[in-house]
Amino acid sequence: MPAQLHARSALATESIFARMSGLAVRHGAINLGQGFPSGAPPAFLLDAAREALGRGDQYTPPPGLPLLREALGRDLNVAPEQVVVTCGATEAMAVLAQALYGPGDEVLMLEPVFDIYWPQARLAGAQPVTVPMRLEGGAWAADLDRMAQAITPRTRALLINSPYNPTGSVFSRVELERIVALAREHDLWIISDEVYDELYYGDAPVPLRTLAPERTFTVGSAGKRLEATGWRVGWIVTPPGHAAQVAGLHQWTTFCAPGPLQAAVALALPMARQSGFYSQLRDGYRARMQRLAQGLRALGLEVMEPQGTYFLSAIGVGLDADRLVEEGRVAVIPGAAFYVQHAAPPGLLRFAFCKPEAEIEEALQRLGQYLGG
Amino acid sequence: MPAQLHARSALATESIFARMSGLAVRHGAINLGQGFPSGAPPAFLLDAAREALGRGDQYTPPPGLPLLREALGRDLNVAPEQVVVTCGATEAMAVLAQALYGPGDEVLMLEPVFDIYWPQARLAGAQPVTVPMRLEGGAWAADLDRMAQAITPRTRALLINSPYNPTGSVFSRVELERIVALAREHDLWIISDEVYDELYYGDAPVPLRTLAPERTFTVGSAGKRLEATGWRVGWIVTPPGHAAQVAGLHQWTTFCAPGPLQAAVALALPMARQSGFYSQLRDGYRARMQRLAQGLRALGLEVMEPQGTYFLSAIGVGLDADRLVEEGRVAVIPGAAFYVQHAAPPGLLRFAFCKPEAEIEEALQRLGQYLGG
Repeated sequence: MPAQLHARSALATESIFARMSGLAVRHGAINLGQGFPSGAPPAFLLDAAREALGRGDQYTPPPGLPLLREALGRDLNVAPEQVVVTCGATEAMAVLAQALYGPGDEVLMLEPVFDIYWPQARLAGAQPVTVPMRLEGGAWAADLDRMAQAITPRTRALLINSPYNPTGSVFSRVELERIVALAREHDLWIISDEVYDELYYGDAPVPLRTLAPERTFTVGSAGKRLEATGWRVGWIVTPPGHAAQVAGLHQWTTFCAPGPLQAAVALALPMARQSGFYSQLRDGYRARMQRLAQGLRALGLEVMEPQGTYFLSAIGVGLDADRLVEEGRVAVIPGAAFYVQHAAPPGLLRFAFCKPEAEIEEALQRLGQYLGG
Repeated sequence: MPAQLHARSALATESIFARMSGLAVRHGAINLGQGFPSGAPPAFLLDAAREALGRGDQYTPPPGLPLLREALGRDLNVAPEQVVVTCGATEAMAVLAQALYGPGDEVLMLEPVFDIYWPQARLAGAQPVTVPMRLEGGAWAADLDRMAQAITPRTRALLINSPYNPTGSVFSRVELERIVALAREHDLWIISDEVYDELYYGDAPVPLRTLAPERTFTVGSAGKRLEATGWRVGWIVTPPGHAAQVAGLHQWTTFCAPGPLQAAVALALPMARQSGFYSQLRDGYRARMQRLAQGLRALGLEVMEPQGTYFLSAIGVGLDADRLVEEGRVAVIPGAAFYVQHAAPPGLLRFAFCKPEAEIEEALQRLGQYLGG
């Protein structure tokens, strides 16, 4: 047998989300781990897909179905020519890693860090460098002084995520302006992962590209926006003049995103906007977030209330995610899974609240029994 | 503005297929270029997708929906645990390039070479080395002596495609046994791109993995089999023991393939087999292939009749694909697009015949007028 796979296959560890979802199924646990809605996507999206089937089942152009690029242009207030449609935001991030950095380059990101950023940078040959978020008085804050200090002549890009998974932070305009100033001073690209752009509980997030259109690549996701995480329709908004090369790399990765699902998303995006779908979604999630936060606090956990995303982080001293899923039958993501270069705050856990209220109630009950037992 | 994208973005040229399809639309040409069917997929596939929507729209496990892995296991006579489902065969090939080779490695492939193989190897950091097919007396043949000579201590893998795009070759068991012997002698991996495994006009192709199960990665495609090239559901059959790492790399590339479309393919695969769908498809394509071959011969072209795929290669001395699409309004792929390290046979063109008979007739008429004019 040939000796070994290539050494980079060592990066191919199972994601913590896949692992915890597997454990949740095995132990009959309530799954507040992986971030996918328990329910179905909205009927207007499903109807659009049923319509599209049989009419657009062959390859689309690699940059995306023209109708979808136009719909995204209108929704995001960018030129359709700047948009590249991808097989989900995961592929969008993978393609940008390939497009922007390689061996000898560094890419700066915050910690806790969403799990794909690290191996994607390593697969592109670059070195990820993380700057830990500060956790003070029950709230997360970006440490922009420390970010400035971490920039070296090798730094090629800043990877920003707002609303931020797993902390639920939404960066303020002032913070983003400081990040843009750093990027301009040191001539860095910005990758802005904005897949939760419609999931916020205070002020709407500021799209980073509006502050630095010349250097910001924005990543978005129909799966996150329209409650269909398995559809694999994401996008990149490129700075003007860079779409063709990004689409070219996407073409060698997956060629194009799923055609009938692209067509459905093109129809659904304006419907979601006009029907108030996103604000209904926010209202529903806000209620569940507040119930979960209140319930966890009542059980003695310290809760960092999120400003966006459908994740909530909390400190549960002594709580171990692996034991919790097995013995308490509640799956959550251990905070340590989001730390690579720094130590995680002890007891940090991430809870997903994109689940039915009944599941959240049941999870709180089980957690209460587990903690009391 | 930051200086430049990473140097590897130079690989991001537009694919010849996207380019010719764009020209076909612009000039109102009959598109015998890119290999996608003009018609819709079969009703049993579309019905299965309409059923799946609303019931499986969230992330699937990265290795694939269990039902689809089981269906593929039965269809391909492998263990479901060996199967990794990908966003189309393009992603399957991209992930295998990452899994199997890197800087300092060489990968051997035949020429004419399908366009994605080359940049995918380069993106993985490896050096592709091509061995030209022989074209003698109107027939293509693999030059296995020359392949043996091209193996060096740096060679890590042989990339084989049978049925072969663009030549339409189907390698015989004797040829495949020779390839396996070379791989075993030099301890090489085999990547076997078998996306046209059900599209053959003589003997059924021998799956390479049946001859070298310990070292063969097979790539397949629901899009090619079920006439839905835009669905992005492909697969890799890994040698036993290697699925987890391949799935891990796929997880960092797209996380998972489109869920509802995976579910539909899982239902459709046994239906396609039991209903005789593939043999009907072959009969239909064989008739169109023979009509196209006869028509091209009548116009003075030398036709290399394919043993598989929905492509036919022919020599049309003096025919230029760019002028043909503009002036003759027939899009084909220039043979030179499949040659990187060696010179293409002069006048080589690839015709796709996965098009309605009326389009093939119209293309032959236009070609006749163009050649006569």
